[in-house]
Amino acid sequence: MEADWQQGLTSLLAHTHIGFLATQGQQTPETSMAPYAIFQGDIILHLSGLAKHSKNIEKNAHVGFMICTPEHASSSALALARLSFTGILQVVPEQEKHAYQQAYLASIPDAAPLFSFPDFTLYRLNIDTIFWVGGFGQARTLTKQTWDSLC
Amino acid sequence: MEADWQQGLTSLLAHTHIGFLATQGQQTPETSMAPYAIFQGDIILHLSGLAKHSKNIEKNAHVGFMICTPEHASSSALALARLSFTGILQVVPEQEKHAYQQAYLASIPDAAPLFSFPDFTLYRLNIDTIFWVGGFGQARTLTKQTWDSLC
Repeated sequence: MEADWQQGLTSLLAHTHIGFLATQGQQTPETSMAPYAIFQGDIILHLSGLAKHSKNIEKNAHVGFMICTPEHASSSALALARLSFTGILQVVPEQEKHAYQQAYLASIPDAAPLFSFPDFTLYRLNIDTIFWVGGFGQARTLTKQTWDSLC
Repeated sequence: MEADWQQGLTSLLAHTHIGFLATQGQQTPETSMAPYAIFQGDIILHLSGLAKHSKNIEKNAHVGFMICTPEHASSSALALARLSFTGILQVVPEQEKHAYQQAYLASIPDAAPLFSFPDFTLYRLNIDTIFWVGGFGQARTLTKQTWDSLC
């Protein structure tokens, strides 16, 4: 059983390239879509400053992020395996940017032209909480240590 | 062009059964997955009181909700058509519950057993804002009137 959920989680990460951000809007939390990659246990996002989520993040960098099995992959919408994080988005420091950018582009190659756009910023998520739902009624909290050992 | 984006939107709704909620957690917005249905222009959700998003909603019913094209349906993760809402979740009043429940089950039939669980609640979203992204650089705000005419 231990191996089962770990395999489910690594399979989810291997087969998905997008996730869903929750950011704090003026009155209301807001959901947006963002392609993601993982590098050394960090979730990496590359966001346009023109998008509403970037304006929200500038005011409040606390976010939620979810990666979910696409619905065609399961016969039940209720049982889709999914992984959710909370944390604080941080701009990737200049001296680490090259390595993060390479990792991002290995996962999202068609984002290459966006790196020449001045309004895009590379972020990494400083993870606070990690929650895995393997299906209906199968949920567990992960430590950062467990997460780091899996990715 | 007008017909194109409308067709994209109705196709998205016809082919998806899940969306992503943004709710306000204690310190951080949080993303969760929720199956959805639409009835008379209302987004309907059926949520377990045991889930974290329900505890968040009890404290603050302002939420975001996004419906997104599954990533296998496009060659680019950057260009996935998606629809996002903000609004206030309201418990469906008792006298309207039967009609909403029927509409929900027509879309999510395997949720039927959950309606006998005492901890599940049927909500509808009182929509404030609607935002459509048809692909990279194709975005527009919809009025409630336009939304109602499309669904």
